[in-house]
Amino acid sequence: MKDVAARAGVGLKTVSRVVNGEPGVTPDTERRVQEAIDALGFRRNDSARVLRKGRTATVGLVLEDLSDPFYGPLNRAVEEVARAHGALLINGSSDEDPERERELALALCARRVDGLVVIPAGDDHRYLEPEIRAGVATVFVDRPAGRIDADVVLSDSFGGAVTGVAHLIAGGHRRIGFIGDQPHIHTATERLRGYRAAMADAGLPVDGAWVSLGTTAPERVSAAARAMLSGPEPVTALFAGNNRVTVTAVRVLASLPRPVALVGFDDFELADLLNPGITVIAQDAAALGRVATDRLFQRLAGADLPPARIELPTRLIPRGSGELPPVC
Amino acid sequence: MKDVAARAGVGLKTVSRVVNGEPGVTPDTERRVQEAIDALGFRRNDSARVLRKGRTATVGLVLEDLSDPFYGPLNRAVEEVARAHGALLINGSSDEDPERERELALALCARRVDGLVVIPAGDDHRYLEPEIRAGVATVFVDRPAGRIDADVVLSDSFGGAVTGVAHLIAGGHRRIGFIGDQPHIHTATERLRGYRAAMADAGLPVDGAWVSLGTTAPERVSAAARAMLSGPEPVTALFAGNNRVTVTAVRVLASLPRPVALVGFDDFELADLLNPGITVIAQDAAALGRVATDRLFQRLAGADLPPARIELPTRLIPRGSGELPPVC
Repeated sequence: MKDVAARAGVGLKTVSRVVNGEPGVTPDTERRVQEAIDALGFRRNDSARVLRKGRTATVGLVLEDLSDPFYGPLNRAVEEVARAHGALLINGSSDEDPERERELALALCARRVDGLVVIPAGDDHRYLEPEIRAGVATVFVDRPAGRIDADVVLSDSFGGAVTGVAHLIAGGHRRIGFIGDQPHIHTATERLRGYRAAMADAGLPVDGAWVSLGTTAPERVSAAARAMLSGPEPVTALFAGNNRVTVTAVRVLASLPRPVALVGFDDFELADLLNPGITVIAQDAAALGRVATDRLFQRLAGADLPPARIELPTRLIPRGSGELPPVC
Repeated sequence: MKDVAARAGVGLKTVSRVVNGEPGVTPDTERRVQEAIDALGFRRNDSARVLRKGRTATVGLVLEDLSDPFYGPLNRAVEEVARAHGALLINGSSDEDPERERELALALCARRVDGLVVIPAGDDHRYLEPEIRAGVATVFVDRPAGRIDADVVLSDSFGGAVTGVAHLIAGGHRRIGFIGDQPHIHTATERLRGYRAAMADAGLPVDGAWVSLGTTAPERVSAAARAMLSGPEPVTALFAGNNRVTVTAVRVLASLPRPVALVGFDDFELADLLNPGITVIAQDAAALGRVATDRLFQRLAGADLPPARIELPTRLIPRGSGELPPVC
């Protein structure tokens, strides 16, 4: 700043006035200061400003996976709500790694975000307690926080899976496979619980060979599907635990000579244009993001709310694949 | 820090040692300081640390649209390269708004990122010159920078469009429609230029009614497609300027009684499972992100490189929709 003042031939206070947009500077002086700033590559240090003024009008979003289309509308909704409140959103992605989630969340806090929306990868969020106590509003979305009492906005994974599996049972299926995401992921185990509940409600046994949890890598999902679909008593229908599983299941089923029914958790683009169309349990991903971020800004506005668990409903969209009858 | 020292009954220097992980503190003292920190919600101020130490091991990515699946693999590749270099990535999305791009890029700079990867929305990036002079390595990707000399990594949009349209012409089409993104977007105009070049190379006229640029909102694209496909001399084939246009074109064509050929710029998930499969000009989106971020880290490592324009090839993937013969 001293260099800028010297180059522009003005005092430090004048430079400060120009940089902070304060009155009392003639247009000519302002221009000279601006030119000196441009010439010297002077960078206004927002970090230092923040330390003085408090709020930064920035919120952070800890994403799960930048390349999973399910999160597209969720992320976008968070961004739109933040923008509607005049706040800037900065993100980072945990890539389903708890250590990385922690590193990112704390890095965003260190960069003085006012609040955090977290799609958690880990199951222990006590590391955020000092931040929350220090005033960083925090809301979890898509999956609950672990070992701390905090706001969370979720879809009804259990209920959605019950509905989807019951739909297959109503269509005459008795041997139904479940392929889901990794067992440490809350939504994966909730959907598995829904599958088991629907089977039990109908008095149907669940063979251990019909259930497979693991990564959503195409090779893993495809091997699991092929295993369930072979042997003397193959499954006649599949319930896919999320959109990543569903798209691989669609590929496997398209290569089979006989029709196999399929219901997938999560809607996805072009699901209706496949042949048959893919029956899904749709979440409202945009609503998850919107409700979570609305909650965040209620907290930032000073609302004294107890931590809440907000669960959004899912909905069955029948399109053909889930209505195929059992063929052995 | 004074409060922490008082509560733990130690000096300021001891608190500083614990916070910065320096030696010379007994385990018992360390525990007491840690408890005081937890109790007081003390937050280590990374911003202040950064000002002293220089590099932050953080790079920023200015995204275009969080919900466009084309950017998924690109964003992920940037993240993977950053991680391989031990750097944290923080993002923000411009949503195709030049003012927002500027606000975000400068906000990331103010938060002291070492480098920036920018998918530009605007066409004037002189606002970044002071940052670049101050040492922020900057690489543009997917679209060129405007009015500054900077690294850019692009796909060959012109060549890809020439190939795709020539493929339709080779299949017997003479009346071919082009539906693209907004005219201020570099890739949109480059692809239009490729379409015109391919038509001209084949000695074919281009009717003004066959070209439509605008937003990729489904209503806009669908109206444009329907207009070209009606009237006494409808087009017999469509070239779609990007994946957002293609998915809407697929919907429109699926509702028509006669077959219409389609080639789309950008590959997309499940394109091969539609009926017919969708012929595309595929970009290597992951390579765009990887090459751009490699370049960024070369600069951060001190390489003295002149600004470069790196163009990656595209590739035609025939799947059926682009091989349909003309039907009037």
